[in-house]
Amino acid sequence: MFKRTLSPRFAETDALGHLSNTTLPIWFEDAREPIFQIFNPELNLASWNLILARIEVDFVRQIYYGSEVVIRTYVIKVGNTSFTLLQEAWQKGELAARGTATMVYFDYASQHSAKIPEIYREQLEEHKLEGEEVIHSN
Amino acid sequence: MFKRTLSPRFAETDALGHLSNTTLPIWFEDAREPIFQIFNPELNLASWNLILARIEVDFVRQIYYGSEVVIRTYVIKVGNTSFTLLQEAWQKGELAARGTATMVYFDYASQHSAKIPEIYREQLEEHKLEGEEVIHSN
Amino acid sequence: MFKRTLSPRFAETDALGHLSNTTLPIWFEDAREPIFQIFNPELNLASWNLILARIEVDFVRQIYYGSEVVIRTYVIKVGNTSFTLLQEAWQKGELAARGTATMVYFDYASQHSAKIPEIYREQLEEHKLEGEEVIHSN
Amino acid sequence: MFKRTLSPRFAETDALGHLSNTTLPIWFEDAREPIFQIFNPELNLASWNLILARIEVDFVRQIYYGSEVVIRTYVIKVGNTSFTLLQEAWQKGELAARGTATMVYFDYASQHSAKIPEIYREQLEEHKLEGEEVIHSN
Repeated sequence: MFKRTLSPRFAETDALGHLSNTTLPIWFEDAREPIFQIFNPELNLASWNLILARIEVDFVRQIYYGSEVVIRTYVIKVGNTSFTLLQEAWQKGELAARGTATMVYFDYASQHSAKIPEIYREQLEEHKLEGEEVIHSN
Repeated sequence: MFKRTLSPRFAETDALGHLSNTTLPIWFEDAREPIFQIFNPELNLASWNLILARIEVDFVRQIYYGSEVVIRTYVIKVGNTSFTLLQEAWQKGELAARGTATMVYFDYASQHSAKIPEIYREQLEEHKLEGEEVIHSN
Repeated sequence: MFKRTLSPRFAETDALGHLSNTTLPIWFEDAREPIFQIFNPELNLASWNLILARIEVDFVRQIYYGSEVVIRTYVIKVGNTSFTLLQEAWQKGELAARGTATMVYFDYASQHSAKIPEIYREQLEEHKLEGEEVIHSN
Repeated sequence: MFKRTLSPRFAETDALGHLSNTTLPIWFEDAREPIFQIFNPELNLASWNLILARIEVDFVRQIYYGSEVVIRTYVIKVGNTSFTLLQEAWQKGELAARGTATMVYFDYASQHSAKIPEIYREQLEEHKLEGEEVIHSN
């Protein structure tokens, strides 16, 4: 499980007085950085090898400006060319949003997906959420 | 069906040279404005009555800077207190992203969902995508 | 003078109920697109030749969600390697924000500024705001 | 002097491979939070009492994804109804951007500026950059 703590920014609020729902995909992407580093330790843009295929976000509770948000990221599925993460945003001890992100191992030069190399697959598997835990976090 | 045409902004690109995936939820929210106007013709923030419950986005194709994007928004389901939209982003005649957004009729004062009034429900139903069309657009 | 009309997005509001000040630099950049096209008609990212050196923004009046904003862009100064634009945001016939942007003709490969070629300089000069007009718009 | 360390987000890069210039005003606003707290310790939106009047940003050096950015915020001028901050963004020990922000003590109910109360003025003065330091940081 990867954990990232952030302070909501004033610019991320909206006119309803809470955090804009549009910031969650930005925060979740930001919290995927340790995953990016599995595939690209130096975060070298010239050799980027992942592309986002799908996201889902459930907005469980409003998020407010002025108190920290913790983003938790879990690996939940590792396929042949893609993998899926579960991501949660917590504020003041309560689950505020939950989502998934499916990423594809991708060759930008040929514009095709490719089989995830074993070395990366192993690292993803190490962070995989198992059995009961999944039930708990859902 | 509601249609909105936009020009991708330079600030919305990312270091991979395409449009950041994080802009799609922003564009889709922007394209929901005619839906907001069904519930709030003056777009009066003090009487806002909708809250976003869930989004899904499938990233079908990369979107590039320099050519227009058309967002199409369809009503696909109207429930008791919530409704679901299907939203698509097209660039150069090709489907680039597709998503759904589930919105809840919501009383911000009491912080509770409420039954969608008949007057709004009727308008949503008028824009509802039926049968074959749904199949086609999926 | 270049003119661009946009509808403020819900995601661009902030918790004070108006448009976030942080959107003005984004809108102004978006409204510089015709200037980018002088230097790069196809907006080809691989041959990009401008870099932003400085911005100033005066926030004259609050901007609200629900009514259009017009961005006007004028060339006010053309130097050897750089040029300066004046940009204004108008809502409901009133000036809401005004700024400048100084851009440098830049070679990304060598990471150095370069003299603006005559062909681009001439086009900038054609759009230059002169004498009284400048006084008026300030 | 106030200091805030942040990790550039992937979504904040642009197609030129560096951080979008439009993120600097967002980061600088974020780094003004300790200043907001002088005027509003609980960051209570209902009693917000500041409005932004003007920003300037000089883009000194490109900022890259993958290494931390430190934002330093100094008070440089305290006037009757407004004050001005100097803000700097540093990456890998080098100054990458520098700006100012002028904020006005503002009554949102009456929509007028007001004299900065002595209690806030004193706190601003405590953080004021003096003489040599100013020269150094410019």
